[in-house]
Amino acid sequence: MSTWKDRLAWLRALPLPIPAEADMPSAVAEIEAASYFGGKPESVIFQKEASLGEAYEITKTASGYTIRGGETGLLYGVYALIFAMETHEPFPRGLHKPCYALRMLNCWDNMSGDIERGYAGRSLWFEGGRLSWEADRIRELGRMLGWAGINALCVNNVNVRGEAHRLIEEDLGELARLAEALRPFGVRLMASIDISQPMLHGIPTADPLDGRVIDWWRERAEAVYRAIPDLAGFVVKADSEHRPGPFTYGRTHAEGANMLARALKPFGGALVWRAFVYNCQQDWRDTATDRPKAAYETYAPLDGQFDDNVILQVKYGPFDFQVREPLSPTFYAMPRTQLALEVQLAQEYTGHQIDLYAMNPLWREIGRALPEGRVRHVAAVSNLGRDENYFGHPFAAANLFGFGKFAWDPETDPEDTLRRWARLTYRLPGPQEDALVRLLAGSRGVYEKYTAPLGLCWMVQPHVHYGPSPEGYEYDAWGTYHRADRYAVGIDRTAAGTGYTLQYPPEVRARYETLESCPDELKLFFHRLRYDYRMADGRTLIQRIYDDHFEGYEEVEDMAAALRGLDLPEPDRSVALERMDRQLRNAREWRDVVNTFFHRLSGAADEKGRKIYD
Amino acid sequence: MSTWKDRLAWLRALPLPIPAEADMPSAVAEIEAASYFGGKPESVIFQKEASLGEAYEITKTASGYTIRGGETGLLYGVYALIFAMETHEPFPRGLHKPCYALRMLNCWDNMSGDIERGYAGRSLWFEGGRLSWEADRIRELGRMLGWAGINALCVNNVNVRGEAHRLIEEDLGELARLAEALRPFGVRLMASIDISQPMLHGIPTADPLDGRVIDWWRERAEAVYRAIPDLAGFVVKADSEHRPGPFTYGRTHAEGANMLARALKPFGGALVWRAFVYNCQQDWRDTATDRPKAAYETYAPLDGQFDDNVILQVKYGPFDFQVREPLSPTFYAMPRTQLALEVQLAQEYTGHQIDLYAMNPLWREIGRALPEGRVRHVAAVSNLGRDENYFGHPFAAANLFGFGKFAWDPETDPEDTLRRWARLTYRLPGPQEDALVRLLAGSRGVYEKYTAPLGLCWMVQPHVHYGPSPEGYEYDAWGTYHRADRYAVGIDRTAAGTGYTLQYPPEVRARYETLESCPDELKLFFHRLRYDYRMADGRTLIQRIYDDHFEGYEEVEDMAAALRGLDLPEPDRSVALERMDRQLRNAREWRDVVNTFFHRLSGAADEKGRKIYD
Repeated sequence: MSTWKDRLAWLRALPLPIPAEADMPSAVAEIEAASYFGGKPESVIFQKEASLGEAYEITKTASGYTIRGGETGLLYGVYALIFAMETHEPFPRGLHKPCYALRMLNCWDNMSGDIERGYAGRSLWFEGGRLSWEADRIRELGRMLGWAGINALCVNNVNVRGEAHRLIEEDLGELARLAEALRPFGVRLMASIDISQPMLHGIPTADPLDGRVIDWWRERAEAVYRAIPDLAGFVVKADSEHRPGPFTYGRTHAEGANMLARALKPFGGALVWRAFVYNCQQDWRDTATDRPKAAYETYAPLDGQFDDNVILQVKYGPFDFQVREPLSPTFYAMPRTQLALEVQLAQEYTGHQIDLYAMNPLWREIGRALPEGRVRHVAAVSNLGRDENYFGHPFAAANLFGFGKFAWDPETDPEDTLRRWARLTYRLPGPQEDALVRLLAGSRGVYEKYTAPLGLCWMVQPHVHYGPSPEGYEYDAWGTYHRADRYAVGIDRTAAGTGYTLQYPPEVRARYETLESCPDELKLFFHRLRYDYRMADGRTLIQRIYDDHFEGYEEVEDMAAALRGLDLPEPDRSVALERMDRQLRNAREWRDVVNTFFHRLSGAADEKGRKIYD
Repeated sequence: MSTWKDRLAWLRALPLPIPAEADMPSAVAEIEAASYFGGKPESVIFQKEASLGEAYEITKTASGYTIRGGETGLLYGVYALIFAMETHEPFPRGLHKPCYALRMLNCWDNMSGDIERGYAGRSLWFEGGRLSWEADRIRELGRMLGWAGINALCVNNVNVRGEAHRLIEEDLGELARLAEALRPFGVRLMASIDISQPMLHGIPTADPLDGRVIDWWRERAEAVYRAIPDLAGFVVKADSEHRPGPFTYGRTHAEGANMLARALKPFGGALVWRAFVYNCQQDWRDTATDRPKAAYETYAPLDGQFDDNVILQVKYGPFDFQVREPLSPTFYAMPRTQLALEVQLAQEYTGHQIDLYAMNPLWREIGRALPEGRVRHVAAVSNLGRDENYFGHPFAAANLFGFGKFAWDPETDPEDTLRRWARLTYRLPGPQEDALVRLLAGSRGVYEKYTAPLGLCWMVQPHVHYGPSPEGYEYDAWGTYHRADRYAVGIDRTAAGTGYTLQYPPEVRARYETLESCPDELKLFFHRLRYDYRMADGRTLIQRIYDDHFEGYEEVEDMAAALRGLDLPEPDRSVALERMDRQLRNAREWRDVVNTFFHRLSGAADEKGRKIYD
């Protein structure tokens, strides 16, 4: 039986495995070129210029192509060239360099082998508390990441659990072998660390200003860089959701991060510090505390205090990867700090790689909202797993590929990216390719319609985060409330309410502050509205909710019909159709539960007389 | 440090361990008597009459006592005598025999060592997939069960998981040793079996009418009874919550149960068949299906078809151990079937052995509602675990003790039983003993006040079943809906509604059918009511809900004060106080969440102006 990887163009174009002696990207570049162009008239000349780094330039010569680039640039250049050939696009002229310096995948893989919020099987490199991987598959993975232009991989869960501290201690040798396997593809490893790790070694504190702690980390960093000289750095989640952190010792996050950054500095490593800090023991009765304000409140005052190799990683929205959130105000507030944008490929809140949810349209919005030049790095929570097709849903591969394209050039048209992925992967007849691209490009809007309305967020099944539960997080400790009653729904986050909007610069604030200027899709994020509130198009809020949910389900039916019309190869076709059946059930459940929930509260009838259950 | 067992009178009265050579209850009886009365002038004469079985009669003689009884009756007689001496009660005159023949503890212990719905630590006899127990502790447990008058122990979870099939196969020898350890205390083992077990042995079906299946079970029963000649029988949960069963093969539950019963019959074993069958894949949109109707619909038509050694075990209410349910109509419907009443000591829905919830008042109500003479057996889901005090909360021991007393005489006054337990256990000064008894006797009413109102059920946190979640099970597949909207709440289960009341005999039905005659505490079980419905006392429904929840919390505060006034020994005092703190937090959460939930829906203000959060 053919497998997904047999057919996926960006893996299939060249034979595997890459010889083991190809231990650097430029060597892989030559092998890839020889293999691809070997049977064709064109020849490829490589001009390595170390200073170009990841950048490349391709020029057409009389007999072929010249690729000029740095060590990794040559590899990216070859892939770009093959890419253009395979998709029959004009080859990419001019100097190409990535927009974002660090383009990282954050893998939430536990040493046990399971993956937090993983929807594509078990870990590709952990099992039973150890590193455990198939060499061929890791090379294939490296190549996939190289194709996508992703240059760093944080191997373990930011919630460092169980034996994961061993990664940079006893298991360092094995981790170095994993680094070696990925290095030829321009992928550098990172590791999530536990800030309390010195306490496992007889040091009675993890206070970042304690000399013993400082020494322990300095020595540990030395040992780690002896084993993995090109490690991209460490990732830390501290003082968040029950993780230990500097607050325990009355220190700031700048003090905590800088201590670790200084240990990495001599080796060129970065310290990535996640800004996902909020009170996860909130009382729902407390209406003064507003979770979206938390990251800004914690970090904005620290701007300028972080060392230059600290990267503060900020989730795109102020909540947590919800379907619709405004850009986090933290991005505007820290001009003197290195910032990374964090997105999530794993479809935690966006359909579990069962429902279709192509992310490039979302990222383009985010990219356009980001203040110019302020963010230099990007990270994505991985959607990879040990499933045969790596992603659970074969189309979820488009999100990994698309993330790489976004990280190189955020201005790329999302539909172009989806079309390129589709073409590389399936080579369908033109009208079918169009249909597939439409299906993907529209998938986020459809998902948004049938789930929580207009930026309300959090109406998901607790813990699982798949399927509707309108009050699932309503009385919980996570700061996730909509406070729907018989008259109205939503939290007033304007200056007159929780004051969240005050965290934005004036021009952004003005847009969200008034109901008239606030875009519809975020109205319930920023405002508390009566069900009879009239939207700009004249519909009441409650009617808009009903309409969206009826339409959303119908649009999934249209998607299912479109999918059935595609001549996809097996097993992709069967897998995609089976998952579409589940998406239909899920969308129906969302439609009916959300409509019934608001109908029970509001008592409002649907103007079009459609069925709302009692 | 003293431990709980050092101080618990019904374990402490006599030294442990009972010598291993005491392999039968009458031998234990003699040792207990010799030990207890050894230093005192009284002497005890035993007259064994096998035909008396578990019954006993004690008479006072010039120099002491004569106990006449069967093999186990002698043991129960000694314990009753010591009991009376210890509590300074008049010794029990006349012939005593238990009301219920089988008085079983259903342990939901998994072979892994965890306990489904266990709140007192890990299993006392399973760990890591094997039987694993401390001999001394099992003897102590046996003695505790003997004191309580419980005569059967089903060792493993009715949800037979993992390796549990090994219990009656490879691990039979070890199970026989456990039976041996408990036999001297009049406790016979039972085992939960998986009806599909023959399929692990190359038989391609578990059809109860298939000759190979019948043979397999007959041979298996022979082997089991060779190892454990006094096994009380097997327990089966079939066709329920994803368990396999006869429905798979188009057979009735009578056919399934009888096949197994016939395998046990030659050895005097009983086949206990749980009647907990309902559609756990219900669609919340479906208002015709009503889960409480399920057991009656499945079993009532089978009355008369079960063999005489089949015992149909029926939960007391038609749902699942909720705080307030009417008696299951199945008890009235099967005069030609051996029935067992099932209750739950494990506080799954009743406070997790954190909140106080003494059950004797509940059981007396149930006992009085049961049709006369129709139910001959009783089973209770165990609340035991490996915690030092066996129960998590030291007062939860009263439920095990009280269950035994109920099983011997359902008419015993609940307060008397609680007082006896309190006196045996703590020997507090009179006013303190009174306070403790009041605390326990009132605990169920208090718990009922601050949780789901008036028989509404199911407003708990899904899965966990501790803490409030008004809509946690509202859109789920378990058949657990209240359909609260802005006007009204509850399901109409009368003849005009789902017709559930039609399952009762006319005199019972009449009571529930009309709003006027339906007791307040069950009004929302049977009826759908508007929030402005006037109760008999003139209060509106919504006001009654608010009042109950405010009062419930205040009553927990009173309980906490009463508890602080008791001179309990340590560690009981600390454990009870710490758990009371958690009960206070829990009651406050319930009060506020339930009040807010209904306030948001109804918009009704509290007439007394107390704080209801928005």
